[in-house]
Amino acid sequence: MPDKGLLIILSGPSGVGKDTVLDYVNSENENINVSISLTTRTMRDGEENGLNYYFVTREYFERKLNEDAFLEFAEYGGNLYGTPKAPVDDMLNKGRNVILKIEVQGAEKIRKLYPDCVSIFILPPSLAVLENRLRGRCSDDEESIQQRLLIAKEEMKRSLEYDYVVINDDLKKAVGDVVSIIAAEEFKTSRNKNKIREVMNYE
Amino acid sequence: MPDKGLLIILSGPSGVGKDTVLDYVNSENENINVSISLTTRTMRDGEENGLNYYFVTREYFERKLNEDAFLEFAEYGGNLYGTPKAPVDDMLNKGRNVILKIEVQGAEKIRKLYPDCVSIFILPPSLAVLENRLRGRCSDDEESIQQRLLIAKEEMKRSLEYDYVVINDDLKKAVGDVVSIIAAEEFKTSRNKNKIREVMNYE
Repeated sequence: MPDKGLLIILSGPSGVGKDTVLDYVNSENENINVSISLTTRTMRDGEENGLNYYFVTREYFERKLNEDAFLEFAEYGGNLYGTPKAPVDDMLNKGRNVILKIEVQGAEKIRKLYPDCVSIFILPPSLAVLENRLRGRCSDDEESIQQRLLIAKEEMKRSLEYDYVVINDDLKKAVGDVVSIIAAEEFKTSRNKNKIREVMNYE
Repeated sequence: MPDKGLLIILSGPSGVGKDTVLDYVNSENENINVSISLTTRTMRDGEENGLNYYFVTREYFERKLNEDAFLEFAEYGGNLYGTPKAPVDDMLNKGRNVILKIEVQGAEKIRKLYPDCVSIFILPPSLAVLENRLRGRCSDDEESIQQRLLIAKEEMKRSLEYDYVVINDDLKKAVGDVVSIIAAEEFKTSRNKNKIREVMNYE
């Protein structure tokens, strides 16, 4: 156990499989909590309040914004999305590891607030594979797919700002890679000063 | 595969189980080469030339010293020990990971020569456990055991200079921890710039 929990940022372009990787990592490592964001968008079929998101009213979200309750927030398609600060700090202080699934701008903000955090960018094996995945999963028209790919490319360029890159070619391997990264970070000397002191504390 | 092989330094006090950890790590990860040192000491029963060490004459060792063929060397109990440079660089350039088992002074030198290296210090769960292990394994007298413990404590203080600390409480877990560290280091963004370029290289 490290001295304090790790804050882990997970990013990657739309279609790369972040959610699936995250689900498996979460089920494989019992010391991980996934941070649940708040959103003002409508709940979709199959979604659950408190599992995928906390679904709240715009009025509630804006009140929380005024109370400075978010680590970061953004507006997409007329809906607000935000990462609540208190539960993240609470879990970290209890020594638990917390994963935030977040896009590149949000990651930039979190990195400034938590310079000690660990950031992982999930890449597709190639842009061609990402394009196929996007075509396979959405019923969008050609223009909209091209638009998504353009955004994906811009995001992927920013993978260089992350501590680690994991290529999601094989899901099982990608999950294992993320689990290894989290495990290794727990052995960083800088995170284990109390433990080293304990070992040495014997005359 | 990273752009270039990793150089991994493994250190720890006498009695902590470095050799056993190293043997298992070596057999679990096929992309690891353990660097074999040269020594002028006599081969012991059960040792093999080219497996534990290259056993050489003092004349040969000194010739190699003059040729600047060592990354680092040291003299203990009248015998010379040195890490040869050429095979390490050769393996790294081929993209293979190389582990050096080395003591703290040697590690300091290697870190200056290869600032990109990854250093791991193996700690015992406590000094009491280390003392028990030392008593169990050697037929040394009390004074000699106290001397070894004193050296161990000095070395363990320097664990703070290492990137990672792994506690060898349970051998299997310690081996898994070292394997995770090596795996995670291979995903460092700084080591994967070529790969990121490859993924992006599609218009």
